Amino acid sequence: MSRPKILLCLDTDPQPSVFDGVVAVDAGVDYLFRHGGVRPADVRDLVYGAMFTRGGEDLKNTAVFVGGSDVTAGEAVLHAVRESFFGDVRVSAMLDSNGSNTTAAAAVVTARRHIGLKGAVVTVLAATGPVGSRVVRLLARAGAQVRVVSRKLTHAEGACDRVAATVPGADLLPLQAKDADDEASALEGAHVVIACGPPGVQLVTAAALTRNRTLEVAIDLNAVPPTGLEGVSPADRAASRDGRLYYGAFGVGRTKMRIHHAAVTQLFAANDQVFDAEEIYEIGLRIEE
Amino acid sequence: MSRPKILLCLDTDPQPSVFDGVVAVDAGVDYLFRHGGVRPADVRDLVYGAMFTRGGEDLKNTAVFVGGSDVTAGEAVLHAVRESFFGDVRVSAMLDSNGSNTTAAAAVVTARRHIGLKGAVVTVLAATGPVGSRVVRLLARAGAQVRVVSRKLTHAEGACDRVAATVPGADLLPLQAKDADDEASALEGAHVVIACGPPGVQLVTAAALTRNRTLEVAIDLNAVPPTGLEGVSPADRAASRDGRLYYGAFGVGRTKMRIHHAAVTQLFAANDQVFDAEEIYEIGLRIEE
Amino acid sequence: MSRPKILLCLDTDPQPSVFDGVVAVDAGVDYLFRHGGVRPADVRDLVYGAMFTRGGEDLKNTAVFVGGSDVTAGEAVLHAVRESFFGDVRVSAMLDSNGSNTTAAAAVVTARRHIGLKGAVVTVLAATGPVGSRVVRLLARAGAQVRVVSRKLTHAEGACDRVAATVPGADLLPLQAKDADDEASALEGAHVVIACGPPGVQLVTAAALTRNRTLEVAIDLNAVPPTGLEGVSPADRAASRDGRLYYGAFGVGRTKMRIHHAAVTQLFAANDQVFDAEEIYEIGLRIEE
Repeated sequence: MSRPKILLCLDTDPQPSVFDGVVAVDAGVDYLFRHGGVRPADVRDLVYGAMFTRGGEDLKNTAVFVGGSDVTAGEAVLHAVRESFFGDVRVSAMLDSNGSNTTAAAAVVTARRHIGLKGAVVTVLAATGPVGSRVVRLLARAGAQVRVVSRKLTHAEGACDRVAATVPGADLLPLQAKDADDEASALEGAHVVIACGPPGVQLVTAAALTRNRTLEVAIDLNAVPPTGLEGVSPADRAASRDGRLYYGAFGVGRTKMRIHHAAVTQLFAANDQVFDAEEIYEIGLRIEE
Repeated sequence: MSRPKILLCLDTDPQPSVFDGVVAVDAGVDYLFRHGGVRPADVRDLVYGAMFTRGGEDLKNTAVFVGGSDVTAGEAVLHAVRESFFGDVRVSAMLDSNGSNTTAAAAVVTARRHIGLKGAVVTVLAATGPVGSRVVRLLARAGAQVRVVSRKLTHAEGACDRVAATVPGADLLPLQAKDADDEASALEGAHVVIACGPPGVQLVTAAALTRNRTLEVAIDLNAVPPTGLEGVSPADRAASRDGRLYYGAFGVGRTKMRIHHAAVTQLFAANDQVFDAEEIYEIGLRIEE
Repeated sequence: MSRPKILLCLDTDPQPSVFDGVVAVDAGVDYLFRHGGVRPADVRDLVYGAMFTRGGEDLKNTAVFVGGSDVTAGEAVLHAVRESFFGDVRVSAMLDSNGSNTTAAAAVVTARRHIGLKGAVVTVLAATGPVGSRVVRLLARAGAQVRVVSRKLTHAEGACDRVAATVPGADLLPLQAKDADDEASALEGAHVVIACGPPGVQLVTAAALTRNRTLEVAIDLNAVPPTGLEGVSPADRAASRDGRLYYGAFGVGRTKMRIHHAAVTQLFAANDQVFDAEEIYEIGLRIEE
């Protein structure tokens, strides 16, 4: 008889995420150990408690989920989780602070539903934030020509350098966009745009979108109006306008949620998995089949 | 197959209530998400996590319970919970900080078991606190003539004004009681007394109770001796003395507990309920049938 | 139908122990109420919530576990738990801060597996810490002649006085050990040694162990190399060398884990149990049969 499934939720916010908890319940987790305000220094003892209580086949029934609103803090916690492992004595772990990995995976899976990514020109707006930089990584691995757009060129270049260091042969172009005209220029010739900007900040005007002749898919991950791409509604889900398909944040959200569920379920398949953007994207691809 | 029942417990105390947790378990909740030290500013993100993770019929399987020892703080949290809702996208919520709603409901249900409340004269002692003010509201709605007693007349008047504003036709009489003689006077001609004073504070002497000729039911909600009505034991449960029935805090407690259980169970019947004093009293009435 | 089993985990560390939580799940607990940063002043309200929510036969399905890394803080919390009880209205409680009780019980159970403790000479090194002092208590009750070794004689004497006050006829010898030679001397003529020193501190040299002619069982509870007894590996489990049996921390650990599981399971057998070192040792003895 197998052990109950326990998910150790290490959340960097003072109050641990209810969203992540509900998804875990619906993914079949039996017990949630929800910890708020987790700092890297807290991690070792907590993860030891997961590693040293069950043995052999049972070890895979305990897993770790790292969450919270601060992605950088979550990355530091995931690092501490991995540092706690002793060879084979380890548990599976997943990072999804602020939904960054499941959102990035869902955005790229959504684009891929309509267009072959290999060789496609994809513009990523606000590409240096936690979600944007993950979207760039996933696109680069998929063989897209990625335009990496940021307000500051040095930020865009830095993001490209970091991705290039881990993705051999990545095809990346850093671009600066100081205003709506620059953003519009970055869309010229692109087949896909994925806007990863902050809530309530418009990046591209409706006029610029209408003028553009190459875009086939336009995805906006900002759920709070005004959206990043003017005229996109958060509820858009393959909405056909101007001869192309539009997706808003909630339109991508169902795919995001399915990926999140599947990833938590998959965490308990073995004790040696670490799910960051790439692994969660692979899970997304399997769902699409 | 329906989703597991999740109760999001938002508690304003640093350590969330064990009492409320055990009752929730015994009311059939599958998963408790227990949060301590919750402030109104924390609420929106937590409640969003409850609202945006399940859809349609499943939404009713997530609900919110607001607890903690400070009723005013709990009211502010419940307000923030309601402010988080978007039209139909909402979850059911219940307030029972310090047991105030279930206790008030149980006290009035207990009185009603023995006497018709419509037109009855009911004296509420220490009527301006969290429990007392709820007792007054429930009695006023039930058509009783309520004597609202406080140490300060302005407090009693304020409490009456607040109830009158929400209960059309409420029959309320504010009274000041500076000492045991005043409290005794407030009982003259009353059919019921409900003492809502703080732990260990005596309000009415045994002599005054014996002298009184009109009281049929006397209820004291103070569990810590000395009780508010001298001679009442917390364990009294329809104890017959002086030609009337006495109830102490534990005597009312069983009814309170049954109401608390039933209210938590009922929370999961739909996704659009808010249970404050009135709704919880209605649940209490249904249990009595 | 019996109520679900609820374990109220009162942990004195800010983040409650994952280790204790997983063991509780695997011991069949249905719901964990995990509280971190618990101080004695918090205890009464929390334990009241466990005491006053279920009645009669159901009361035994709620129990308390006191944990955390600080054993002294845990003892104060257990004291506050016991002070909260009203006669028969109580719940079972167990203390195992830092694993001190289950570790001490496992060490003595392990020694007893190989040698009759009554009349045996047993040297306890680092005998005045939380684990060491519990080992001394258990050995004294079992009728062993116990050598209580500490760096300071006054500490050793104090530990002996405390045990003597609760174990009539205890046979205790306080000894000071300022260096490895003193520790080696304390082993001369002993049948068993149990080293309870801190992580990474060597107490006895391999040469001294080889020279010793009387030791039959040598147990070292320090899991972090260098171990307290030079040459002992944490993984040693009845390893035979020098004509005697060696146990390291992990070698004792499986017994410790079985005792921990059994104790949590046993907590729910009745509502009036308190498990400190002695009771947990008795559970360990029953497992060995």
